Amino acid sequence: MQTPWDHRFAQRTQRMGSSAVRELLKLTEQPDLISFAGGLPAPDVFPIDAFREACDRVLVENGAQALQYGTTEGYKPLRELIVRHSARYGINVTPENVLITSGSQQALDLLGKILINPGDRILVESPTYLGALQAWSAYGAEYVTVPMDEYGMVTEALEEALRSGPKFIYVLPNFQNPTGVTLSLERRQRLIELADRYGVPIVEDDPYGQLRYEGEHIPPVVVLDGQYRGNGEGCYYGNVIYLSTFSKILSPGIRLAWVIAPPVVIHKLVQAKQGADLHTSTFNQIVAHEISRGGFLDQHIKLIRKVYGERRNIMLAAMDRYFPPGVEWTHPQGGLFLWGMLPENMNSSDVLRVAIERKVAFVPGAPFYPGGGGHNTMRINFSNATPEQIREGIARLGQVLREKMGEPLGL
Amino acid sequence: MQTPWDHRFAQRTQRMGSSAVRELLKLTEQPDLISFAGGLPAPDVFPIDAFREACDRVLVENGAQALQYGTTEGYKPLRELIVRHSARYGINVTPENVLITSGSQQALDLLGKILINPGDRILVESPTYLGALQAWSAYGAEYVTVPMDEYGMVTEALEEALRSGPKFIYVLPNFQNPTGVTLSLERRQRLIELADRYGVPIVEDDPYGQLRYEGEHIPPVVVLDGQYRGNGEGCYYGNVIYLSTFSKILSPGIRLAWVIAPPVVIHKLVQAKQGADLHTSTFNQIVAHEISRGGFLDQHIKLIRKVYGERRNIMLAAMDRYFPPGVEWTHPQGGLFLWGMLPENMNSSDVLRVAIERKVAFVPGAPFYPGGGGHNTMRINFSNATPEQIREGIARLGQVLREKMGEPLGL
Repeated sequence: MQTPWDHRFAQRTQRMGSSAVRELLKLTEQPDLISFAGGLPAPDVFPIDAFREACDRVLVENGAQALQYGTTEGYKPLRELIVRHSARYGINVTPENVLITSGSQQALDLLGKILINPGDRILVESPTYLGALQAWSAYGAEYVTVPMDEYGMVTEALEEALRSGPKFIYVLPNFQNPTGVTLSLERRQRLIELADRYGVPIVEDDPYGQLRYEGEHIPPVVVLDGQYRGNGEGCYYGNVIYLSTFSKILSPGIRLAWVIAPPVVIHKLVQAKQGADLHTSTFNQIVAHEISRGGFLDQHIKLIRKVYGERRNIMLAAMDRYFPPGVEWTHPQGGLFLWGMLPENMNSSDVLRVAIERKVAFVPGAPFYPGGGGHNTMRINFSNATPEQIREGIARLGQVLREKMGEPLGL
Repeated sequence: MQTPWDHRFAQRTQRMGSSAVRELLKLTEQPDLISFAGGLPAPDVFPIDAFREACDRVLVENGAQALQYGTTEGYKPLRELIVRHSARYGINVTPENVLITSGSQQALDLLGKILINPGDRILVESPTYLGALQAWSAYGAEYVTVPMDEYGMVTEALEEALRSGPKFIYVLPNFQNPTGVTLSLERRQRLIELADRYGVPIVEDDPYGQLRYEGEHIPPVVVLDGQYRGNGEGCYYGNVIYLSTFSKILSPGIRLAWVIAPPVVIHKLVQAKQGADLHTSTFNQIVAHEISRGGFLDQHIKLIRKVYGERRNIMLAAMDRYFPPGVEWTHPQGGLFLWGMLPENMNSSDVLRVAIERKVAFVPGAPFYPGGGGHNTMRINFSNATPEQIREGIARLGQVLREKMGEPLGL
C-alpha cells in the first residue's frame, strides 16, 4: 500500500539497503538448524545467578536511582570500574576519557555522527566489521581498504592508502571480526608510525581482546601508541580512540559498551548521544557494575576462555577431519570467529544456499569487503554452538563442500 | 591539549552545541536544591517490587534469551502487548507496525535519520520539545513554526506554514512538553484536514497521553486520522507516525519506547536502528513485558495519575498563593509540566540565576522556541518533587519573582 512517507525518505537511506545475505540468513532461524552464522556468545556462560543477585540487590538498595533517568556520560562508578579494568591492560585513563554506550554499535554510530562528512574516506581492513560499514555509510563515508593476511592488516600497503587522506584508520587488532586474525606486534608498531607520519588518527575496536585462548597477549594499539609518543609510560595520548564492550564478557542482551577517547571527543560524543538516546539504561549500568566489582569479571572471563577455547579446538579438529582439500581456514588465537577460504572459482553464497537445506549455516564473506571481492570466503562462529553441534555442523558443511567441489559423495 | 581529532569533527557537530541553559542547569545538581527543571518521574511511583519479581522470574525461566542478542524490531511478545495496549486507546495495528526503541529519543533520532535531508523543513509547534530539535538539527533540519495558545497549536496559522512545504508535521497533542497544553479535538480535526489537503504527514509524539488527571480523554491524532480517512473504524491509515514510551508509566531508566508506523517506515527504521545500536536491551524488553502483562500496567497508571494529579494541584495552589500578579501559568490536565509566563520585559534566564542561589530551579523557555522568542517563559515540572518540596520551592520561586518584579520584599 502506498503511504505518504514512501517518497519522503532521506537520500542516506539509499545507503542502508537490506542485503541479500541478510535475507538469506533469515532462513537460518529454524530450530533444527546448526548456525555458525551469528556472532553470539554461548548462553551456557551467561552468569545468570550473578545477574539474579545483582538485580535484586540493586533494586533493593538503589532502585530509585536505577529506574530513573541518568547522565549521558554514564554511571560514574561504572566509568571508574572501566578505568580500573583498562589499567590492567595498560590503558591509563581517567573517567573523563570514558563514555558508556548502548553497545559498541552505538559507539560506531556516534563516531560516524561526530566525525564523518559525506564523502570522507575511512581507512579499513579488507575484510572488516560489517556493523562499522553499516553505521558509517549512513553518514556518507567512502572507504579506502588495506588487505589482510595471517598477521592482520598488511602494513606494506598502508602507506599508499594513507596518501588518499583518510579521516581515520579503523582497525580490529585482536581476533578480528570477521577473520579471527590478530595484528602482529611489529605491524601494530608500523601502523602507529605511519599513522603518525601521515597525521591520521586511529579507531581501535577491541571487543574480543580479553578472550585469548593461546599465545601471548599483545598490547593494544592505544597502549603502544602511548609508548611510541614517549610521554610517560602508559599515558593516554589521544591519537587512538579505543572501543570495548561487556557484550562478550558478560552479556550482549544488556547492550553495554564503552569508548575511551580524549575529553574533547567525549564531549562531542556526549552531545551526539543526547540527541540519539539521552543515555544508556541506568538499570543495566548499575547492575553491570554490581556484578563486575569485586573481581567477578576476571573469574568469569577465565571461564569463557576455557569454554570458547575448547569449542575452537573442536571446530578446528572437525575441519581437519571433514573439510576437503582446497579449503583453507584461519587458526584464531582467541575471539569468536574463524575464516574459511574456498577455491577462487567457488562462491560461498551458493554454498550457503545448499548448506541451509542441510540445516547448517555460516555467513558468506563478500559483504565484509567494502571494496568488493571475497566471494569465496566465509565467516564461521565457534562460540555459540555446543561441541556436539559443532562436530555435526562441520561434518554437514564438509559434505556440502565436497559435493560443491565435485568430489564423489560420501568420501 | 591539542588532539588529532580537534580539526576532524563533522560539520553537523556545529549544530550540536551545548546550550548556555544546559551549563546553567548543571548548577542545579546540589542535594539541597529543589529542582522543577528535569522531566523526571517521581521515584516514589517506580514499581520496584514488580521489577524485583519480574527480573528474577525472567532470569530463572528465560535467562539465556534475556541476556542474548535479540532482533532489531524488538521482542515479539512485547510488540504484541503494545498492540493490545494501543487498541484500548483506539489505535488498531499489528506487530508489523511496531518497533521497539531505546527510549523515545531514539525514535526521534531514527526518524531524523530516515527522513531528513539537510535543509528539509519540519513543521513544529512553538515552543516544542527540545529533544526533537536536538535530534533533527544534527541531520540538517530547518524548522517552520506554528504558535500555540491554551488549545495547542493555533491551526489558523497552520495553513501558511504548510505552504512552505514541510517534510512532516511534529505535534505533541497531550500535555505538551514544555507547555502542558492539550490540543483540542476541533484543532486535531483541523490539523488532519489541512495535513491531508497539503499532503504532509504527521509525527505524533505522545509520552504523556495516559497521564490525564482531569477532563475528558481526547482521541490521539492517529485515531482521528483513521476516522477522517473513513477506511474502516479505527483502521490504521499510515499518515500518522505515533510515538509513545514506557518512561513515564514504568521507568525511564530502562530506556524503552515504541514507534507505530506503516511497515514501509518500520522497515527503514529497522535498517537505521541496525546501524545505530543493533537492538534495544533484550533483558529490559523481556522484563518490561513480564511486568506489564496481566493488567499490572493499568493498575500502575492509576496510581501514577493519583500521585501526579495531587502534585499538580499542590503546585497550582502554591502558585496562586506565592506568585506575584503579572505572572501567568498554564493549568495542564495531565502530564508532567506546566508553563510560566512572566511579563514581556523579564528574562527567565536571569530569574533562574537568582533562583539557583535560593536553591530552586526550573528550565527557561527560550531554547524550546526554534524560531527564537520565549525569553520570558519557564518550564516547571510538578511530577518529581514531593508535595513539601513543591510548596517550599514555589514559595522560594515566588519570592525571587517578587524581587525581580520590583515588589517590596516579603509581601
